[in-house]
Amino acid sequence: MAPRKPQPQSGEERLIARYFRPLARHPGALGLTDDAAVLTPPAGAELVLTTDAIVGGVHFFPADRADMVARKALRVNLSDLAAKGAKPAGFLLSLALPKRIGEGWLASFARGLGGDAETYSCPLLGGDCVRTPGPLTISIAAFGTLPQGTMVRRSGARAGDRIVVSGTIGDAALGLVLRSDAGAAKRWRLDRSQRGHLAERYLLPRPRNAIAEALRARASAAMDISDGLVGDLGKLCAASGVAAEVEAERVPLSQAARRALAADSALIETVLTGGDDYEIIGTVAAGKLASLRAAAAAAGVPLTEIGGVRKGRGTVRVLDRDRKPLLFKRPAFSHF
Amino acid sequence: MAPRKPQPQSGEERLIARYFRPLARHPGALGLTDDAAVLTPPAGAELVLTTDAIVGGVHFFPADRADMVARKALRVNLSDLAAKGAKPAGFLLSLALPKRIGEGWLASFARGLGGDAETYSCPLLGGDCVRTPGPLTISIAAFGTLPQGTMVRRSGARAGDRIVVSGTIGDAALGLVLRSDAGAAKRWRLDRSQRGHLAERYLLPRPRNAIAEALRARASAAMDISDGLVGDLGKLCAASGVAAEVEAERVPLSQAARRALAADSALIETVLTGGDDYEIIGTVAAGKLASLRAAAAAAGVPLTEIGGVRKGRGTVRVLDRDRKPLLFKRPAFSHF
Repeated sequence: MAPRKPQPQSGEERLIARYFRPLARHPGALGLTDDAAVLTPPAGAELVLTTDAIVGGVHFFPADRADMVARKALRVNLSDLAAKGAKPAGFLLSLALPKRIGEGWLASFARGLGGDAETYSCPLLGGDCVRTPGPLTISIAAFGTLPQGTMVRRSGARAGDRIVVSGTIGDAALGLVLRSDAGAAKRWRLDRSQRGHLAERYLLPRPRNAIAEALRARASAAMDISDGLVGDLGKLCAASGVAAEVEAERVPLSQAARRALAADSALIETVLTGGDDYEIIGTVAAGKLASLRAAAAAAGVPLTEIGGVRKGRGTVRVLDRDRKPLLFKRPAFSHF
Repeated sequence: MAPRKPQPQSGEERLIARYFRPLARHPGALGLTDDAAVLTPPAGAELVLTTDAIVGGVHFFPADRADMVARKALRVNLSDLAAKGAKPAGFLLSLALPKRIGEGWLASFARGLGGDAETYSCPLLGGDCVRTPGPLTISIAAFGTLPQGTMVRRSGARAGDRIVVSGTIGDAALGLVLRSDAGAAKRWRLDRSQRGHLAERYLLPRPRNAIAEALRARASAAMDISDGLVGDLGKLCAASGVAAEVEAERVPLSQAARRALAADSALIETVLTGGDDYEIIGTVAAGKLASLRAAAAAAGVPLTEIGGVRKGRGTVRVLDRDRKPLLFKRPAFSHF
């Protein structure tokens, strides 16, 4: 008998070598050839660690483009780092693949992932790839760094602070309705570009990493909005031991969302309590509001003041233009 | 209309508060009430990062006890940290739950997870909990620390080094056969305790974190064996640019595995190439072998010398007692 030939690569090794090794250019990734990655935080820094998973048929449509799925998986994690004021340092990818996923899909997935890793300076450090008889499941753990003790928490809001949000609210939730209700676009009188805007905002979050440093320097509390503005602001208030008052009229809306609301005013609930915004909600001492908004504007991110922090225990009041409180059936999105 | 009451917790928040918050006693976990966790590595340390997922019906049986599933999910990650010489610092948990999972299951899962987090000083730092229409999927990202530049890599083996493995090899692969082949225990003439031993070795890995420091101080290369001794040693050799020669007779076997092999000598392939050992395979300069074995023994972990490193390019020769090479159909386990 002849001695064994050099080990043929396993299917998993071949997949990793072909699609993911080219993304792993960070020296700590060790070319994805080891059991673990190495990360050396800058002196005096601490690490911010977060993980978020997305599941086919739950967080994205099985027919969504693979590069978009990859980018969404990374971006929902980047959004957490942004809200905490952390600078992205890298991520680990855990991928559960159904048998039907082919090489074309993987090539596109890796392309999308690599593009965003580059855009957000958040390199792939390592990962795991397993089979699943269920839907495609992507779990990412992302790491950021910041100077010790400076993480922006949910718990720092104080009565008197002003409340701000980045970008526009409700687009993704309306985009999701459009995906599952073919008649909605017509009822809402959306033109093609407005439909496209909402659909794209569901498909692909825009994490606000550009304002991480501005938040870290000035915000008293912040989080990213993944489960709806009202519900997530409620979590921030609960963590801070305060209450909030939001003026519905001031909540920033895209042109498309405004048009949908004009056609059906009941959509205000979808806008304010739907999920997947991936915008930042933060609080800031009144005296720092102007400076925070200026810093965000300089980074290209609009921040809008939508209300104020009050004494209380987690309550969020949303007032209409007559200062009457709006009441919602389901304040926040939850899978459970 | 009355102002909104304090936000009722969502189902996910309630789950986390009830089952996982009690585990999150590390201050950096922030009681699982924030978007991210904080970790401050000791001065001069670097972080070792690893992730491994396990999927119901693939890596464990859906009927396995929840506490065992939790412990396996954490232990396969701890095993990577051990092989790299890192001290556990904490982990993030990403849990995709099917609807049928009830609270009793979760309580048991959290109990198992918390017990091992304590045993291995690897606290829960944060996580994510999502719904899946597929099987239960648990992805863990685990972090360890070690002095800068001291991670034990796969790539450090040199010709002339000796090869060692911890514990015993093949038990888990035989245990898996027992789970799916009801007649095997009888054919192999195993008594009840031997059957129990093999089954338990599949169910619950025993990560070798007790020898992490000994490996870091003395091993030239190491990895944990998850896809079979021969295949994983091949990966280590390929990363190091060397070859290996293993004497099959020297591979440490449990009493149960020896008995099964005595009944069916063809099982040697299952033993040497089956997966799920979660033992360490390492290489060490001949002059440090005795000291490494002594340090491991002092930590309560047997290390057995099974062969040597040669010049070459990834080839692993396994020799029988007559120094004839054994040939295997499938050198390593792979899902792909």
